Amino acid sequence: MGAELLKVLERRNFPVATIRALASGKSAGKDVSFRGRPVPVEELTEKSFAEIDIAFFSAGGERSQKFAPLARDAGAVVIDNSSTFRMNPDVPLVIPEINPHDVKQHRGLIANPNCTTAVALMALYPLHRAFGVRRVFAASYQAVSGSGARAIAELTEQVKASGENRQSRPEVYPHPIAFNVLPHVDIFLENGYTKEEMKMQDEGRKIMHLPEFQASVTCVRVPVYRAHSVAVSAEFDNPVSVEQAHEVLAKAPGLELVDEPKKNRYPMPIEVAGKDNCQVGRVRRDCALENGLAFWVSGDQLLKGAALNAVQIAELL
Amino acid sequence: MGAELLKVLERRNFPVATIRALASGKSAGKDVSFRGRPVPVEELTEKSFAEIDIAFFSAGGERSQKFAPLARDAGAVVIDNSSTFRMNPDVPLVIPEINPHDVKQHRGLIANPNCTTAVALMALYPLHRAFGVRRVFAASYQAVSGSGARAIAELTEQVKASGENRQSRPEVYPHPIAFNVLPHVDIFLENGYTKEEMKMQDEGRKIMHLPEFQASVTCVRVPVYRAHSVAVSAEFDNPVSVEQAHEVLAKAPGLELVDEPKKNRYPMPIEVAGKDNCQVGRVRRDCALENGLAFWVSGDQLLKGAALNAVQIAELL
Repeated sequence: MGAELLKVLERRNFPVATIRALASGKSAGKDVSFRGRPVPVEELTEKSFAEIDIAFFSAGGERSQKFAPLARDAGAVVIDNSSTFRMNPDVPLVIPEINPHDVKQHRGLIANPNCTTAVALMALYPLHRAFGVRRVFAASYQAVSGSGARAIAELTEQVKASGENRQSRPEVYPHPIAFNVLPHVDIFLENGYTKEEMKMQDEGRKIMHLPEFQASVTCVRVPVYRAHSVAVSAEFDNPVSVEQAHEVLAKAPGLELVDEPKKNRYPMPIEVAGKDNCQVGRVRRDCALENGLAFWVSGDQLLKGAALNAVQIAELL
Repeated sequence: MGAELLKVLERRNFPVATIRALASGKSAGKDVSFRGRPVPVEELTEKSFAEIDIAFFSAGGERSQKFAPLARDAGAVVIDNSSTFRMNPDVPLVIPEINPHDVKQHRGLIANPNCTTAVALMALYPLHRAFGVRRVFAASYQAVSGSGARAIAELTEQVKASGENRQSRPEVYPHPIAFNVLPHVDIFLENGYTKEEMKMQDEGRKIMHLPEFQASVTCVRVPVYRAHSVAVSAEFDNPVSVEQAHEVLAKAPGLELVDEPKKNRYPMPIEVAGKDNCQVGRVRRDCALENGLAFWVSGDQLLKGAALNAVQIAELL
């Protein structure tokens, strides 16, 4: 995500006096580019955080666990993309379009939400404000870029191998991802859901301040390079209509309503990849719920689900 | 589906005295192969059905509409794969593992169910027998072979074009399918669902003899060559447990339980492609339903969803 983050900081003209890029020893010595100038990558150490105002962390849970408190103690505000601190009651978990005020409670650490959760909530939250959400049933279609650069290369290699009629051993995923789908994102928990699947309920409750919110989710990796999609059936306290839902969604910040199915217009990963806004469409009265809506949302999980959301949090500071 | 059907008839050693292959004028004159011998493809005409016992139709709704009654009137029993007659009360709609006895009511026409519905019901029906199903929320991951040979070629060509950094114009689908997903299978109805999406409720009611059954479905085309998958949340009348569900599913005909997620074992399209049995896994207590189960089912939609099911119906006759 580092490269995406630098691009978002550039594009949004974030006020940066100096920028430092920190990584593991392996990457140290390379350069990254910011505003047309090379920034040397330094090795992340316990002493890296002197005179840093804002530290973006996106190097996995272990590094966040170890280094984020050090950065905070050195005076930085940490915006962490890992799941490490998200459910910690002392750490705000923030989507700026939904709960910007929670940022104020921070004690040096702010968590960035899970990507699939962020994309789904961008459409769900405005509907919640209008109708009061109780629970959702959702299934995701998640891009390989969510697993990093090696997963992108793995999909490309497997597709190439398939064209040349040879086998290509999967390394990032436990099974081939080309021309396949895997109902397996993140590790399996005792209740049979994956950790990823439970995040929509757990993080959704915290972000929307809705302790009773329920979400039953199946997370699936699909052979798409970039942008996640989620099919959602949502149940509300109050009566719903597609017209009202359209009105609410059309006005929602960070969201674009793309809902003219008869003209073949609906959100798709290839359309939304690289875009800041998430897209929602296929909005319909849910035929198996009393007060329910079914809808389909797509969003660039590297932007709204990660880098963009992190920079938006920094802007709130 | 014609080629798949011939293969299934061979493989299951169906008692065939003579076989005739009928197609449009375009294909007439070609040969297909049955039991190692060439069978000439004849042009389908109004007089094609003399002395035919069983006529398998799989040439789209229009041809079924026109020619199936002619075949029936000539004395054949028609097993039709199109959606034309499925909801006709005089026409049994049959999945042999579920409602074999309905075949007896036929008046010369028997309908084969929709492929996604068939795959989902193979797992849902045994659970219904155990717990009494009320409603389901489902999202599908449908292979391009469901749209025919041209769609398979389109995916291959688009993947190739992407590797060569050139554009490839979609023809079968309204948008590219390579490295993308399309929340669009079949035509859109006034209620915002597609025709395909409503089939699980409509056909499910008829097949399971459950007039109150509700199904809210999102059908999505994914860049997979063969085999459909469905993520399902199902609500039941009676209390459920994963142990009981496993027991029931392990014994269900035509179904294989593949549910050891911690060993990375779950159903996937590339595993189930070419297999007669559907596979079910990821079974868990649904965390947003009182008496609910979430599960994931994959099946070769050209076999269980079409050719195999049609031959199984013929075997019942």
